[in-house]
Amino acid sequence: MTTRADDPAAPVPPTVAGGTPPAGVGPGTAPVTGQDAADAVEVLGLVAALEHRAFVRLAADTAQAPDVEQALALSRFAAACTGRRDRVLARIDELGGDPVAALARFDQVLDEFDDRTPSSTWWERLLKAYVGYGVADDFCRLASRGLDPRSRDLVAELLEDASHAELVVRELDRACADDEVLTSRLALWGRRLVGEALNVVQRVVQQRPGVARAVDRATADELAPQTAPVADVPAQAPARVINELTAEHTRRMSRLHLTA
Amino acid sequence: MTTRADDPAAPVPPTVAGGTPPAGVGPGTAPVTGQDAADAVEVLGLVAALEHRAFVRLAADTAQAPDVEQALALSRFAAACTGRRDRVLARIDELGGDPVAALARFDQVLDEFDDRTPSSTWWERLLKAYVGYGVADDFCRLASRGLDPRSRDLVAELLEDASHAELVVRELDRACADDEVLTSRLALWGRRLVGEALNVVQRVVQQRPGVARAVDRATADELAPQTAPVADVPAQAPARVINELTAEHTRRMSRLHLTA
Repeated sequence: MTTRADDPAAPVPPTVAGGTPPAGVGPGTAPVTGQDAADAVEVLGLVAALEHRAFVRLAADTAQAPDVEQALALSRFAAACTGRRDRVLARIDELGGDPVAALARFDQVLDEFDDRTPSSTWWERLLKAYVGYGVADDFCRLASRGLDPRSRDLVAELLEDASHAELVVRELDRACADDEVLTSRLALWGRRLVGEALNVVQRVVQQRPGVARAVDRATADELAPQTAPVADVPAQAPARVINELTAEHTRRMSRLHLTA
Repeated sequence: MTTRADDPAAPVPPTVAGGTPPAGVGPGTAPVTGQDAADAVEVLGLVAALEHRAFVRLAADTAQAPDVEQALALSRFAAACTGRRDRVLARIDELGGDPVAALARFDQVLDEFDDRTPSSTWWERLLKAYVGYGVADDFCRLASRGLDPRSRDLVAELLEDASHAELVVRELDRACADDEVLTSRLALWGRRLVGEALNVVQRVVQQRPGVARAVDRATADELAPQTAPVADVPAQAPARVINELTAEHTRRMSRLHLTA
């Protein structure tokens, strides 16, 4: 892993092996440099940080799982997170960023989310992962639409895997089937979680100008595809981002037959 | 994953896909059935259980690692454990065993080891993994020499990866370099750990007749390669097994410049 400084103005490193395109360049695409590369490094750092945390959380779930079959399944999901994280870190490196710094800069805001949402039962833990990853994945997908094509496609490809969500839906559905008290408790917990998750989104957009620019480009492109890239840093995630994330969350909760 | 009962007398399941050899059969090898298969399932269950615990422990190390680089490295070692465990579980399935039951039957004895050796610092944690995995891997390699060639070769191949040990040696060497107090504390901790690990070996051999038979075949073969397989279950791991494990432990501690 490189330890090069995360400097958006750093020159593109020379080609190492004959035939390999220079860093930041995909087949048939222009090199990604300057602010575009820096913005991509910020968004990808968030994706990597989330996958790394998902690994740690799923691994802890493995140790707490109620039976061996679930423990095995959860450990496989955890292992898959490290593979996804490492592919994102490799892309950050290609873009001339410092993978470790890019990942680590989201530690505080993600720690705060965990501190504010301590889950007290296995079901609360499962729902926290489902809601938390859900909002986070939706936000990363959205922000990545404002990046270069290779970074965007990488994020879209990595976030496609829904196997963990399927396990959660199956287990929570089974647990809630004949338990109205659990159902209403979890619905309440889900509302708490989504509120905190959307707060994290707001804070990330406020604190990280590269993420904010990517979000702005992603949403501006959709309104008027021909407009030039937005240079100003928006102070907050635009209302339509929050609306989109909330709508996805509502769909996700309805899969669990829980009121969002 | 199969849920078939772990019955050594269960018939070998029929070939599913054309060209695939029947379960328990490798290219150019005779089918493994009856007690041979049951013994292999027991030893492989121990290997799988150890890899599964290594995953959980390394994942917890990831969350506690003193810096991001070490966290990333540890999470990769953890992910590799799930891959190795799953290859062993697949072999248990091929042999007609129940992978989940084979893994789960070592829970109690391994929990006891953890309960008896709580590590109180990061360095104690690292050394526990190094000594614990070290003795466990050596024992599994030894017992697997008493199994069918495919099972034996699988275990040998999987346990070849020394990358975690290299990280531990590097980190502990650095920490101990100028710290005599830490060095002597860790030497003491190492002696405690190896004593407890050898106790686990004794208990596993006493409790699991299949493991005991494999160990006996492995060591009998080395003394007199032409003798028939041993049918009696030895009451204890033979002294030469303990001697071999202790000698390997001493070599391992000397890599750390610690007195075994």
